[in-house]
Formats: sequence, C-alpha cells, structure tokens
Amino acid sequence: MLRTQFEEELLNLHNQFYEMGMLVSNAIHKSVRAYVKHDKEIAREVIENDEAINNMEIRLEKKSFEMIALQQPVTTDLRMIITVMKASSDLERMGDHAVSIAKSTIRVKGETRIAEIEKEISDMSDYVKKMVDNVLVAYVKTDQDDARMIAQMDERVNEYYRDIYYQTIESMKANPETVVSGTDYLSVAQYLERIGDYVTNICEWIVYLATGKISELNTNRTEMI
Amino acid sequence: MLRTQFEEELLNLHNQFYEMGMLVSNAIHKSVRAYVKHDKEIAREVIENDEAINNMEIRLEKKSFEMIALQQPVTTDLRMIITVMKASSDLERMGDHAVSIAKSTIRVKGETRIAEIEKEISDMSDYVKKMVDNVLVAYVKTDQDDARMIAQMDERVNEYYRDIYYQTIESMKANPETVVSGTDYLSVAQYLERIGDYVTNICEWIVYLATGKISELNTNRTEMI
Repeated sequence: MLRTQFEEELLNLHNQFYEMGMLVSNAIHKSVRAYVKHDKEIAREVIENDEAINNMEIRLEKKSFEMIALQQPVTTDLRMIITVMKASSDLERMGDHAVSIAKSTIRVKGETRIAEIEKEISDMSDYVKKMVDNVLVAYVKTDQDDARMIAQMDERVNEYYRDIYYQTIESMKANPETVVSGTDYLSVAQYLERIGDYVTNICEWIVYLATGKISELNTNRTEMI
Repeated sequence: MLRTQFEEELLNLHNQFYEMGMLVSNAIHKSVRAYVKHDKEIAREVIENDEAINNMEIRLEKKSFEMIALQQPVTTDLRMIITVMKASSDLERMGDHAVSIAKSTIRVKGETRIAEIEKEISDMSDYVKKMVDNVLVAYVKTDQDDARMIAQMDERVNEYYRDIYYQTIESMKANPETVVSGTDYLSVAQYLERIGDYVTNICEWIVYLATGKISELNTNRTEMI
C-alpha cells in the first residue's frame, strides 16, 4: 500500500526523533569518557556537536507545529506528534547536560583527583547511557511495559549519586586539595542523575503514546533528604 | 460581543498558566527564605505544595491536547496552546528546583554555615524571583520586547553563581568543617541558576507566541568554563 504524504511525514518525524536521541546518547557517553580520561579534545567535540542537537530540536518543533496546523491530525497521529514535541525538549536538555560535563573536563586544571570516585562516575554513566539507549528502543516500539521498567532503573541512578556524594564529601573533608575536583564530581554526578530524570520523562511520554494517558512513573525522583 | 466556548476555554488556559506561574514563583521565594532562615516548617510546606503544581501541569497538558484534537485550532490560537504546552513544562521544572532547595533546608543538620554566602544566595534568589514575576507579566501581555530584556537578565544570574562558587570553594579549602554546607550552597545556587535558564526558555516561547518564530535568546546560557 502506498503511504500518503502525511504518513510519510509522520514516519520522518518519528525517525528524526530517534536520530536526535542517538546523537544525545553519544554526547553523554563521549562527555563522560572525556571527563574520566581528562581528554579535552573529545570534550570540545561534544560542545561543538551540541549545535546539531539544538538545531534538530528546532526542526522537530517546527515540523510538529506545521503538521498540527496544516493536517489537523487526530487520535493516534496527534498523540505521536505531541510526544515528539514534548519529549524532544527532554532530549535537548540531556544534550545540554552532556555539554556541562564536557565543560567540566575543560575546566579541570590538574587538581588532585580521586581515582575511585572517577571510576564510580564512569560506572554511573555507563548505566545512564544504557537507560538512554533502552528508552529510544522503547520509543521506537511504543512499548509501554519497557518504558515502565526503564523508569524503575532511575532508582539505581539515585543510589549511584548518593554513593558518590558521601565519598566526595569525606574526601573533601580529609584533604582540602580535593575540594575543586570534589565539587566537580558532585556536579557531574548531578548532571547524570538529572539525565536519568529526563529518561523517566520520556518513559512517561511513551506511556502516553501507547495509551493516551498522562501518568507519573516516578514521583519520588528527586534527590535524597 | 459574546465569546464562543472555544475563546472561553482559551482564556481559561491562559489564566491557568499564569496561576501556575504564580504558584511556582511563590515556591521559589519560600524555598530560599526557608533555606536562609533554616526554617524546616516552611520548607515542608514547599514540598507539600508541589503536588498542586504538578497537577496543574497535567491539567494544562490534558486541556491543550483536547483543544487541539477537538477544535483543530489554527494560527494564533494554535500558537497559544502550543506555548502553554511547552512552557508549562518549564514552570513545572522550576517548581521541582524549589522542592530541591527545600529539601536542602531539611537536610541541614547544624553544620558550620557562612553568613556572607547565605546573604549572597538570598540576593540571588530575589533577583531570580524578579525574573520569574516579570516573565509572567510579559506572558500575559505577549510582550516580546520585555521577553528579550528578561532573557538578558540571565547574565547577572550567572555572575551571582560564579561569585558564590568561588567564595564557597575558598571557604571549603580553608575550613573542612564548611564542606557539607559548602556543597549545599553550590547546589542551591545551581538550582537558582537553572531556574534562570527556564525563565529564558519561557521568554523564547513568548517570542514564539508573538511572532510564530522559534528563536534562541541566550545561547550562552550555560555555566562558566
């Protein structure tokens, strides 16, 4: 069966969202690798590539608005466009956080660093990257069960954050020379933690896409008290 | 002239967005006041009231989707609905940051605190609150000139952040007993800094509302390198 022009455009939107997601996943991965390897070259790449991500978001937004205005889609089609409209902001912010991590890499000026904490941050980022990759697959398959499962993974991200927090505080107290690296560790871990929150948001949009219902998958997403 | 039911609904949407914004502005103000006054009671209030803000966002989203699906609005009307759809997420996240600040207040357990930095945080939050209040007025008036001006204010917020950052680092290096409060100062200042970014996002949506153009008002919004 031939696809109508509208169906074609919808498929394009869908694919471009996925593509944007892959760029963001890559940016997160590279930014943390650059951070733990102290590789300012890769960090600069992440910063430069962010423009492509931002432009993609703007393109997706424009296209969604246009499709709503001109084609006046209803039910499932409208839902798909709305999902892209809302979830693309989440992706874009995840990309911004990758840039922030990359900037931390460039900022570091040979301060005393702590290998164990950097290892923990690296593990945390592997875990977060897995969430990001999984959520993109769940989006492509409109798989709400997977989406719910992925949202649960955020709990582990919060645990990573807590561990890194306490280790870092201890080391800063014990050795003032680790204060600058230490505050950097905390902010990198916080960016990763927040990326986990954005993944949870996207999970909620997948549930919406599948069911038409707006739900909160993880109300307890914020940091520890 | 009598308003149609659609116009009535549009006006309601508009008013509810403004109302949600006022709740968020209030939450930010209260959370920082609680933080600098070490008032856990007010902090708890902020945390409890956040549910109302979240529910409001969900209500606004549902209503927007419904209006698009059932009324198939075009041009200015559609633009208004899209603005509410997108900008309400920004408001909701600002509310989340107020909650994070409130949680910091509850977490504090009589550590060594630094009055000058707390004063600076308090000033920063007054400034950020002004931005939030101004952006709500600019939204109500669809005033794109004001929106552009408010986005410029974000520069000063970044300066506040930088000042607080350097002061805090110095004090943590000099006195290990300030490490816990210090990392807290940094995260509260970072939340405020991010609230400034969200205000800038809303400014961009006001420009969109006025002109139909998606623009970036402040590409240099992220933290220092």
